[in-house]
Amino acid sequence: MRTASSLPHARDLARQLRKDMSAMEDVVANCRSAVEARESEIKAFRFLNWELVKKQVGELHRIPAERRGPLFGLPVAVKDIFDTSDMPTSYGSEIYAGHRPSADAACVARLRAAGAIILGKTVTTEFAFWHAGPTRNPHDTMRTPGGSSSGSCAGLAAGMFPLALGSQTAASTMRPAAFCGITGYKPSRHWISRAGVKALAGSTLDAVGVFGRCVDDVALLAQVMAGIEMEEDDNPSLDAPVIATWQGQEWNAAETYATSAVLEAAERLASAGANVIKVTPATDFDRLIDLQKLVMAREAACDLAWEHLCHRDLLSDTLADFLDEGTAVSAAGYQSALASVDDCKSRIDQLFGAADILVAPSAPGEAPLHETGTGNPDMSRAWTLLDLPSITIPFGNGPSGLPLGLQVAARPGHDETLLGTARWIERVLGTEVP
Amino acid sequence: MRTASSLPHARDLARQLRKDMSAMEDVVANCRSAVEARESEIKAFRFLNWELVKKQVGELHRIPAERRGPLFGLPVAVKDIFDTSDMPTSYGSEIYAGHRPSADAACVARLRAAGAIILGKTVTTEFAFWHAGPTRNPHDTMRTPGGSSSGSCAGLAAGMFPLALGSQTAASTMRPAAFCGITGYKPSRHWISRAGVKALAGSTLDAVGVFGRCVDDVALLAQVMAGIEMEEDDNPSLDAPVIATWQGQEWNAAETYATSAVLEAAERLASAGANVIKVTPATDFDRLIDLQKLVMAREAACDLAWEHLCHRDLLSDTLADFLDEGTAVSAAGYQSALASVDDCKSRIDQLFGAADILVAPSAPGEAPLHETGTGNPDMSRAWTLLDLPSITIPFGNGPSGLPLGLQVAARPGHDETLLGTARWIERVLGTEVP
Repeated sequence: MRTASSLPHARDLARQLRKDMSAMEDVVANCRSAVEARESEIKAFRFLNWELVKKQVGELHRIPAERRGPLFGLPVAVKDIFDTSDMPTSYGSEIYAGHRPSADAACVARLRAAGAIILGKTVTTEFAFWHAGPTRNPHDTMRTPGGSSSGSCAGLAAGMFPLALGSQTAASTMRPAAFCGITGYKPSRHWISRAGVKALAGSTLDAVGVFGRCVDDVALLAQVMAGIEMEEDDNPSLDAPVIATWQGQEWNAAETYATSAVLEAAERLASAGANVIKVTPATDFDRLIDLQKLVMAREAACDLAWEHLCHRDLLSDTLADFLDEGTAVSAAGYQSALASVDDCKSRIDQLFGAADILVAPSAPGEAPLHETGTGNPDMSRAWTLLDLPSITIPFGNGPSGLPLGLQVAARPGHDETLLGTARWIERVLGTEVP
Repeated sequence: MRTASSLPHARDLARQLRKDMSAMEDVVANCRSAVEARESEIKAFRFLNWELVKKQVGELHRIPAERRGPLFGLPVAVKDIFDTSDMPTSYGSEIYAGHRPSADAACVARLRAAGAIILGKTVTTEFAFWHAGPTRNPHDTMRTPGGSSSGSCAGLAAGMFPLALGSQTAASTMRPAAFCGITGYKPSRHWISRAGVKALAGSTLDAVGVFGRCVDDVALLAQVMAGIEMEEDDNPSLDAPVIATWQGQEWNAAETYATSAVLEAAERLASAGANVIKVTPATDFDRLIDLQKLVMAREAACDLAWEHLCHRDLLSDTLADFLDEGTAVSAAGYQSALASVDDCKSRIDQLFGAADILVAPSAPGEAPLHETGTGNPDMSRAWTLLDLPSITIPFGNGPSGLPLGLQVAARPGHDETLLGTARWIERVLGTEVP
């Protein structure tokens, strides 16, 4: 294991590649070695074609120095719910076997324009819901990598690529990143376009998520897609933040070793100067977990109406039942849930109090066995519903030695505070990545 | 001209068709006659194939009585930004010439499941922005039908179909419906899934819109797509509402004949028992017009990134310039705009005061000449940004005898109040449709 700081950050690597393009072949060769070493057991990819990768590298070589973007030469793996014009995209479903979109998803187009190599498409659960794909956790192949961004997290943790895309509707960025011991970031929903990304609960919940080896890496990837021009010295670490542990219903339901790891992290952050406080959310904030389930079910039944109505026989039972359930949610119940969410959002400042950010476990425990599913998403449901920008930083290990994650969130739209604080936390904790 | 009440409402027609399917051929034949009479000058359709229509009618004939849905046998024309699996879908752009989606848009799937006949695809401006298609206003073919839902409104007004789909990002449902003298409804954004609908400003603005001959018709169409099960007697007219004329910056910029028509309508509503008041929005509400332009530009640059980056040469200059402008909007400026909108939303109750609904002209005047574009969207920008559910009801005529519209809006999420009040207004005003 090396510390995050011992690996070149994506920004530095891209800067180096812009000057010396010959290193691009090495970067790709390193990815290929990792794929050849472990893909047969990990099964991170849904589609990967080295000829197509070589073609992209060739095209990058022809880009004049002044037009080489901030991701120049960096391989990015893309969850198979993002449309790609040059690769099949099947959304984790047989219904779309062999489907080839006409266009790239808007955010993928921005990655390419910034010089990224789109390495391949990674395994997603069916339509980013629960029904698992074949991917295994590289830390223990008997375990799930988590979902729904299974392949992006497992492949990154196995060293197959330095950056990857995912998404989050309940916990699909935080949970798999934590299970695989990598860094995941779900920006505020409005930062990154979801045009060309298959919707699951598009009206209220879906967000694009990103994965990397450190906070700097995920920040860079997200900023490129959001169209935010970053200066070299932007997003400095913030010093001595006020940090609140979020001890709601999820906290009490998590494994003791998971909450203990958060408390240990908090203690170390306090020693480094942070003011650590505790937030016990009011009952109506605790209700957000159930409201998230209701909103997700109804919106999924709306967004996947074609699949539900025309191809029910090709859906997993898990999903078909969930869409039935969502169809049965009344308009009044949905409207009332959204009103409760708005009410909680209007009291976000009161909730945060003096805190700049909230912390909690990224998942209730370490990765469960593969056959049990992709793990419990409850730790992120409320924060996703409130659209808090969130980052998971690997910290600690469970009883089986598997990685745990520290989930960090800021007020809606306060992504800069989140990134700055997360950088500070990462430095204090000396986060390790594989 | 017949009054709305003299035509069979869609709900009644569907009920009749469920009992006597043989009338389906007549309904389709009526559409065909109108198309044959006027399509060569109106140019409402981007795609129309009578064999495909016949095939759908044949399939409907095989549906057993107990499974015939609320739109059974009703032809619906679909704006060409909605994906259809059996018809080409080109989003009003050469980039997608001949494009055939793999799936139906989620809301189109729900229409089919409810028994609708998808008649064909109607002309949209390029990606539902300003660049006009060939469609002409059936009331005067020298005039624009408005945009971006040009073909849906012009075709409906010319009697080619009883129901149609559109969308709204600035004013693309209200404006063309008013110019064509038909009823348009933009429900609250979260009611109808936009999965499979080409995004223009998907994060904050885009909404599905619907068109018909009366409020009952648009309510039925929207409710089916929203998955709202309506009882026969739902949505009764509300009596004696409190109605406020919205006399903001848009009002002052509109033609005098347009605001006079609204005042005349208000007077008639007052005579029928409504309490009519006046709202002069505070300065920060007047700013919403400019904020809508900024948000729309930035989100369009995000959502259309692939087209902008990879196919700029196939975009109109109008759109390419707009996307350049949107790319230049800073993240901080966008964030600050969204914060101002949230602030206005939190004061909606204060804005409405005692009023149940707001009224204003649906457009600044009657339809301008075709060569000048699709008309000014300013009358709907603020209300779209606040996500007020809105209906336009045809009322009055401009100096050239062309139709005007009364734009009616309710608080966010209060679609039932809107529909009930709009039904009452329609009855009082005796709205006429072609």
